[in-house]
Amino acid sequence: MDTLPYDSRQLKHCAGDIIRNVRELAAAGWTPATSSNFSLRLDDRHVAITVSGRDKGRLVEDDIMVVDLQGQPVATSHRPSAETLLHTQLYARFAEVGCVLHTHSLNQTVASRLFAGAGHVHLEGYELLKAFTGNSTHETAIELPVLPNSQDMHTLAAQVDALLDQRCMWGYLIDGHGLYAWGRDMAEARRHLDAFEFLLGCELELRKLQR
Amino acid sequence: MDTLPYDSRQLKHCAGDIIRNVRELAAAGWTPATSSNFSLRLDDRHVAITVSGRDKGRLVEDDIMVVDLQGQPVATSHRPSAETLLHTQLYARFAEVGCVLHTHSLNQTVASRLFAGAGHVHLEGYELLKAFTGNSTHETAIELPVLPNSQDMHTLAAQVDALLDQRCMWGYLIDGHGLYAWGRDMAEARRHLDAFEFLLGCELELRKLQR
Amino acid sequence: MDTLPYDSRQLKHCAGDIIRNVRELAAAGWTPATSSNFSLRLDDRHVAITVSGRDKGRLVEDDIMVVDLQGQPVATSHRPSAETLLHTQLYARFAEVGCVLHTHSLNQTVASRLFAGAGHVHLEGYELLKAFTGNSTHETAIELPVLPNSQDMHTLAAQVDALLDQRCMWGYLIDGHGLYAWGRDMAEARRHLDAFEFLLGCELELRKLQR
Amino acid sequence: MDTLPYDSRQLKHCAGDIIRNVRELAAAGWTPATSSNFSLRLDDRHVAITVSGRDKGRLVEDDIMVVDLQGQPVATSHRPSAETLLHTQLYARFAEVGCVLHTHSLNQTVASRLFAGAGHVHLEGYELLKAFTGNSTHETAIELPVLPNSQDMHTLAAQVDALLDQRCMWGYLIDGHGLYAWGRDMAEARRHLDAFEFLLGCELELRKLQR
Repeated sequence: MDTLPYDSRQLKHCAGDIIRNVRELAAAGWTPATSSNFSLRLDDRHVAITVSGRDKGRLVEDDIMVVDLQGQPVATSHRPSAETLLHTQLYARFAEVGCVLHTHSLNQTVASRLFAGAGHVHLEGYELLKAFTGNSTHETAIELPVLPNSQDMHTLAAQVDALLDQRCMWGYLIDGHGLYAWGRDMAEARRHLDAFEFLLGCELELRKLQR
Repeated sequence: MDTLPYDSRQLKHCAGDIIRNVRELAAAGWTPATSSNFSLRLDDRHVAITVSGRDKGRLVEDDIMVVDLQGQPVATSHRPSAETLLHTQLYARFAEVGCVLHTHSLNQTVASRLFAGAGHVHLEGYELLKAFTGNSTHETAIELPVLPNSQDMHTLAAQVDALLDQRCMWGYLIDGHGLYAWGRDMAEARRHLDAFEFLLGCELELRKLQR
Repeated sequence: MDTLPYDSRQLKHCAGDIIRNVRELAAAGWTPATSSNFSLRLDDRHVAITVSGRDKGRLVEDDIMVVDLQGQPVATSHRPSAETLLHTQLYARFAEVGCVLHTHSLNQTVASRLFAGAGHVHLEGYELLKAFTGNSTHETAIELPVLPNSQDMHTLAAQVDALLDQRCMWGYLIDGHGLYAWGRDMAEARRHLDAFEFLLGCELELRKLQR
Repeated sequence: MDTLPYDSRQLKHCAGDIIRNVRELAAAGWTPATSSNFSLRLDDRHVAITVSGRDKGRLVEDDIMVVDLQGQPVATSHRPSAETLLHTQLYARFAEVGCVLHTHSLNQTVASRLFAGAGHVHLEGYELLKAFTGNSTHETAIELPVLPNSQDMHTLAAQVDALLDQRCMWGYLIDGHGLYAWGRDMAEARRHLDAFEFLLGCELELRKLQR
């Protein structure tokens, strides 16, 4: 008898989707040294999320656990990532958010250090800005926020909430740390993540070339 | 009874060729965030082209559709890429063009931004210039045009036509956007695409090193 | 009758673990031209280590041999790497060290040249500093030592011993040569190796961007 | 009845060895746009070499042909690479040369342009200098020659011969073109090729960082 408070077939489906995508991200080198974490919404009260400290290149079903929208483990003894709160605050705030991806690529980390003083990365004039849901032209600009890093997740979450009060956004950087990107489902979150990574790479290269 | 205005076995063959090649280009990172589009000539009135918005790393047969030389969908409810007109203008103008490839690599995007002001990238003194059909020596030069970006495909197509009136060429860049390259068949278009990508990479590296 | 002074099943297990991990490191380009060497502790008196000069991308079981903690071959006619002493000094000194990895990535080699004068690479303010066992916050710093290169392993080993007398550390660079990293087991040593590589890559990129 | 002037089983063996290695080099991006060529000695009068213009990422047995030490095709209607003479001059001059590899990586091409004026690349202080047969320490230096490019192979071959009269060497660059590297067998030639590529990459990165 299945007395779990969520649909276990749905969890299995989500776990497969996370594993498939995270292995690609790990192969690209965006999850160095067991860093990074990933989640998918299960239902209006539960989220599937990667267990803390696992090697993202070798992810298996047992590396995915369930938390509620306050980030508390549900029906498991696994420990979720320390940064679980940064995932669940998005699911709790926006009913339409279905997927949150957090990676640590070299471009993301370097850009976060370089633009921490400015507090954001200005992205303008790229065709790929159309990859972000809501944009239909390259004649636009995005300010990708860069937050100061902290080991206190409540401090980080409060900073993110303050930003979300002001504007619509699909991601942010944390200084010296990496990128959070999200979307309504895995495909949209991946598209946003890939677009941020690409555009940060372009900005870094242009800065080397244009000085 | 096959009442399609094109040979459906030929479409199947073209789709396979596109899928095989585009997966390689996607694996190389040249099609970020569902961008880029690809086509092969079916016959003197039809072209096989990728459906808009599909993930180029996971392309399947259903992601390939048929358009006529005006870019109108043929016997399908799929929507072709917004940039279909930039493909079909080449097929309509040159009976010998058999394949058009449009990618968004980082080198292509960065070079397009860097050289947009100049209006072209000057490529000279490379052995690989021999990769372009018609060149038999490294003692030559190519001016790869860089067009301003636009969401109006008729504006872009008119710019391309004006260039084609002046000279023979195998590709062009669009600012902040990416590269178009073509050839008489897939192998030649790939060779031209790969050579442009390589030479743009060399120019960017040399610029970093020689300042 | 198995009269070997070590457990041959344990050797087989260690060899498999080394092969699996080294192939990944070779595929990443961190072991150019048959360079680099790798070891795992077998027991309190023996170490499994790669045979000298083998292609690390094609490693097989016969490429793994046993040495004692003085670096002498045990029950084999194979010749261990010239640098075996730099592995065994760690196993002999620290009972808890279970794995030593030595690679030659481009970032490692370039950083070693660039920071040889300073004698160390300063790593500070990165979330990934938490990847090193003992660190629980990004608000810390690591000085990764850079030793002068030498073909005399006793000279190198004495330099390493002098450093180990002063502080806890998980790795060091040798000028123009590469990185040594270690841990209590393969997973920890890989995590340390991957974190050093990533952070060196960040430092090099930032230096190009911030001048 | 086998009336071929060479051992056809030996050719089959050589072809397999070339295909396996060249696919790896193609996957690394060192053979863009059907460029590059590769050979192995069959016997004291014959060499197996890649046919002109084939895609190096998709090499099959039919893409390997036989030439004599003057570069003339033997028992085949295939056309050898235009640069065949640069291979055969090494086999004809040195009985111990068993393999010649010619690639066009981005690092090789960029370094050839950057150092063409100097006429050589100075490589010093790297542990990986030990990868070149004859070197047993990092305390040495190699001058990798950079020759002016030419479409006349006799001109290029004469330049190479003049250099070989003066010194022992395992490779050279051609300006805007790529690298030739060789060895007594495939493994040694690959080790030399990989070491040159790695060291050129280090030199380019250091130049960006140290200015």
